[in-house]
Amino acid sequence: MSYEAGLVPAFLIPDKPITRGDTMSRTADTWILAAQCPSRLGTVDVVTRFLKEQHCYITELNSFDDRLSGRFFIRAEFRPEVEGFGGEAFHDAFAPRAAEFAMEFELTPPGKRMGTVILVSKADHCLNDLLYRYRIGQLPLDIRAVISNHPDLESLAAWHGLPYYHCPITSETKPQQEAQVQEIIEETGAELVVLARYMQVLSPAMCERLAGRAINIHHSLLPGFKGAKPYHQAYEKGVKLVGATAHYINNDLDEGPIIAQGVEPVDHAHYPEDLVAKGRDIECLTLARAIGYHLERRVFLHAGRTVVLGN
Amino acid sequence: MSYEAGLVPAFLIPDKPITRGDTMSRTADTWILAAQCPSRLGTVDVVTRFLKEQHCYITELNSFDDRLSGRFFIRAEFRPEVEGFGGEAFHDAFAPRAAEFAMEFELTPPGKRMGTVILVSKADHCLNDLLYRYRIGQLPLDIRAVISNHPDLESLAAWHGLPYYHCPITSETKPQQEAQVQEIIEETGAELVVLARYMQVLSPAMCERLAGRAINIHHSLLPGFKGAKPYHQAYEKGVKLVGATAHYINNDLDEGPIIAQGVEPVDHAHYPEDLVAKGRDIECLTLARAIGYHLERRVFLHAGRTVVLGN
Amino acid sequence: MSYEAGLVPAFLIPDKPITRGDTMSRTADTWILAAQCPSRLGTVDVVTRFLKEQHCYITELNSFDDRLSGRFFIRAEFRPEVEGFGGEAFHDAFAPRAAEFAMEFELTPPGKRMGTVILVSKADHCLNDLLYRYRIGQLPLDIRAVISNHPDLESLAAWHGLPYYHCPITSETKPQQEAQVQEIIEETGAELVVLARYMQVLSPAMCERLAGRAINIHHSLLPGFKGAKPYHQAYEKGVKLVGATAHYINNDLDEGPIIAQGVEPVDHAHYPEDLVAKGRDIECLTLARAIGYHLERRVFLHAGRTVVLGN
Amino acid sequence: MSYEAGLVPAFLIPDKPITRGDTMSRTADTWILAAQCPSRLGTVDVVTRFLKEQHCYITELNSFDDRLSGRFFIRAEFRPEVEGFGGEAFHDAFAPRAAEFAMEFELTPPGKRMGTVILVSKADHCLNDLLYRYRIGQLPLDIRAVISNHPDLESLAAWHGLPYYHCPITSETKPQQEAQVQEIIEETGAELVVLARYMQVLSPAMCERLAGRAINIHHSLLPGFKGAKPYHQAYEKGVKLVGATAHYINNDLDEGPIIAQGVEPVDHAHYPEDLVAKGRDIECLTLARAIGYHLERRVFLHAGRTVVLGN
Repeated sequence: MSYEAGLVPAFLIPDKPITRGDTMSRTADTWILAAQCPSRLGTVDVVTRFLKEQHCYITELNSFDDRLSGRFFIRAEFRPEVEGFGGEAFHDAFAPRAAEFAMEFELTPPGKRMGTVILVSKADHCLNDLLYRYRIGQLPLDIRAVISNHPDLESLAAWHGLPYYHCPITSETKPQQEAQVQEIIEETGAELVVLARYMQVLSPAMCERLAGRAINIHHSLLPGFKGAKPYHQAYEKGVKLVGATAHYINNDLDEGPIIAQGVEPVDHAHYPEDLVAKGRDIECLTLARAIGYHLERRVFLHAGRTVVLGN
Repeated sequence: MSYEAGLVPAFLIPDKPITRGDTMSRTADTWILAAQCPSRLGTVDVVTRFLKEQHCYITELNSFDDRLSGRFFIRAEFRPEVEGFGGEAFHDAFAPRAAEFAMEFELTPPGKRMGTVILVSKADHCLNDLLYRYRIGQLPLDIRAVISNHPDLESLAAWHGLPYYHCPITSETKPQQEAQVQEIIEETGAELVVLARYMQVLSPAMCERLAGRAINIHHSLLPGFKGAKPYHQAYEKGVKLVGATAHYINNDLDEGPIIAQGVEPVDHAHYPEDLVAKGRDIECLTLARAIGYHLERRVFLHAGRTVVLGN
Repeated sequence: MSYEAGLVPAFLIPDKPITRGDTMSRTADTWILAAQCPSRLGTVDVVTRFLKEQHCYITELNSFDDRLSGRFFIRAEFRPEVEGFGGEAFHDAFAPRAAEFAMEFELTPPGKRMGTVILVSKADHCLNDLLYRYRIGQLPLDIRAVISNHPDLESLAAWHGLPYYHCPITSETKPQQEAQVQEIIEETGAELVVLARYMQVLSPAMCERLAGRAINIHHSLLPGFKGAKPYHQAYEKGVKLVGATAHYINNDLDEGPIIAQGVEPVDHAHYPEDLVAKGRDIECLTLARAIGYHLERRVFLHAGRTVVLGN
Repeated sequence: MSYEAGLVPAFLIPDKPITRGDTMSRTADTWILAAQCPSRLGTVDVVTRFLKEQHCYITELNSFDDRLSGRFFIRAEFRPEVEGFGGEAFHDAFAPRAAEFAMEFELTPPGKRMGTVILVSKADHCLNDLLYRYRIGQLPLDIRAVISNHPDLESLAAWHGLPYYHCPITSETKPQQEAQVQEIIEETGAELVVLARYMQVLSPAMCERLAGRAINIHHSLLPGFKGAKPYHQAYEKGVKLVGATAHYINNDLDEGPIIAQGVEPVDHAHYPEDLVAKGRDIECLTLARAIGYHLERRVFLHAGRTVVLGN
């Protein structure tokens, strides 16, 4: 099958106006190639030429060159136009070309649901929101476990058919608890860890192990009110906006690379408890947005910042 | 003239549907009474009963009790329904009642334009925006002078028919320059001082003299990136939102009570110069909004925070 | 108990700075008085004087006079400062004074949870969101039943311990089905009916019966794309924003008085299915916001518009 | 000059952390290639391979395939890495390759300022805003004339050193007036026409001549309140949001392809005049944003919709 004859394949041409009620999925059959490397002439071409050779039709392409750090980022959504396209063969054939550019890349097949473990404490608003999006298929997660240092949210997880691990923690048992959590992550083969208001500071070693694959939601705009009770601080300061920040964790819990931020107006009549309530909505939305970007391989990490392509 | 007979005055009843094209001003003939005092039973009644006795019809009323600080705030827009209403007589008659509640109050007649001095440096976006709103009457300012430590913006002021004072400043001449600025403020009788990107840190003495009547625009959300070049800091941190904060100045230039905040989404592709450009719009809008609240006597200062009623 | 001696009651004065971690509820012990009447001198005073006489401390007060329609609206949150305050006695004592102003009023005690029936179809995002807010007490609802023309959402209701009524509907059985729904509403004593994506056009008679106490969420900004599949229309038009509108129902299902609206940016890459997904979040938030305003008696209906005080 | 040796050119590697205060322009030396054609395998490759061959380094690349209409859109910002790069030679060499894909393309050199004519009536808020952005270089416009059917805004244009043409119009003289306007557009060689609150409906012939290069600002969200006085309609409807729409004109003045939309919350206390004031800010921002996208060649027109890449 080839388009060299200049023909547009029939399925690309709607033979009638869009019938309302039909929804043609934009991504149901598309693969994603995400890559980054040092800036250098030919970085785009090495990707796009290869896709062409492999008879892959690019449906969405975004690249960005960060002149300030000399780093190049690219993300392509594409649809193979050949029978028997195989991800492994593609990967192996592309690897040597990528190597010439010191390019790191990742290939993601359509319909991939990412193995995920969710860490929570007692507050359930983010968990409730994520499980809803998971249940209706809006976020292509494959949730393997919900872990908490409290027993409270077990029935919520159970209703969604998810295993729940109660791993209590004290300052004394922290190393053992983290080992326990780490074991669950490894045994379930989770690629993503979501801290959905987990409220615990991870040890540097744990942060290190989860670098680039653990997303936290911080209940404040960063930089901003750090430490405990940011909504109380916000009230005392009389801010007119409150916000939330979703970020990859790093050693400094609330200081990792930012993926998404949300904000909402407030006023003097918002007591700390009202700010907390406002914050719940923003936290849910911002965390869900960040996870969506991560799952769609839109987020690139480099030099402590993220590049989010095509969001 | 009295409504005690139960009659609604004719002008309050539109005898036909709103004719499109008519605009009936909501505030052209309304006075404003703004007051605050310690929380105590009767604080509302002392205001509203007096207004009733004076045959003043309240068109908008907002009060707020801050339980956390034990402070009460009230703002009433009203329209006298009697011939010969006089602000001075009203003031004198109300003063002893207010005193019983340790109530501070301010009475503002309709159409009052507030005497204002604007301080600028070289950046003209906020000045340009304010002068436009001044010119079309959107902000009821009576601008008496534009003062700058640079000569650059003279022609902009001149085009609007405004006197421009070039008061250069160095670290050595700061006391003299501030005295000069203070003199202009006093001679023009300005009640309001707007720091429209003035870029100079005022001395504690100057801050003290202008307490509660000088509004600054800070090019960052507060708390947030402090110090120089917040947009560069925002870029390095990879924030997904930038914002601006309008606040009353206090001794710590960028830390005064917040009046208004604005925000706009950005992404990795916004270099510092792009963030600066984004920031210009937010700064203009946020400063104009804060000045509007101040002119309408919506802003109350207490304990380092503002209460903004009915915005 | 009286404050006439000029003393501020001790509990109003925090004797120490706010301890972070404490949350002093702003409304846990406050009553709400909401009223409207024709514009006329004394409308505020009749309310505030009575509250003073009854030893009620007003913690938040908002009034608005709509000059264009000659109508006055007022809402007061207050805290009785006497032992043995009773709503019924208050009501009876205030009624004759209100009558002099042709004033309609409603008194709501603290902690009141409003009897509510929720109508749904198959889509569960709004229901899921409302049940969450109900469960954590963010919305003081007393949900008495979930009614649907489909059986799909029964387990969701069941998990929250709520009765679920499956009332199928066809064009032939519409009158009977509406009678059935009406009966449930009446038997449960529900004061509020929420159409959380119910997808059925109510008959004029049903609309009439539910006037002012049934809130619908429309998946578009109004006015805007009416009729079926507004997200498909939005896609074809290439809009850069999508929104939702929460409103009281009236005879024209999607045209009732607007209570709240929400909006989110989109772009060309949002296919109809993506717009639907974006819409889910906005619909949830906008509906929850509108219900919150209604429960807090902030919404006043007059002449086909709403006035929302102090939101 | 070649990077085939695998070396990253020195200027791409910052040898020190970004010095705050430096701003490295992201686009000062970049060309733009914008193209569209029917969807077909190889559409990306034909562009990116050519850029590689021409030693052009791509700094930002975005492509989008609209599956629903079978159309492909691409935009590349690139920096030639060779001496003596010439746009004309590039164009001539690329044309035959583009032709194979029925690809329309446009090449824009760095620093290009687009010849522009602005049409206004009496309202000056958008003009004032655009002239400010023009003056500080934020919008790379080369404004050749301001045309109005009223004399009022001459001094504003004059202060910016711009020729002002007063072309009055009546229903009788409309054809002659449009001919006059058209003549000015042609004589000045303007590529872009901005209707900055021009308030006149252009004739179909005029719309036809200006297709794809005339941007209008409509003072409402579209679809929405059409016809005269949308802010009055918005007030009567009691909307909680007002907005503005910037779009290319077509035969139906307020119905052309949407480029950008803005929105702001309002409430019952916003009388029509207040909505007009709110609208001014949104109109300015939305129009400026749309013009910016157009100047940066981000906007593609197809089938009555726009695709806006990388905004």
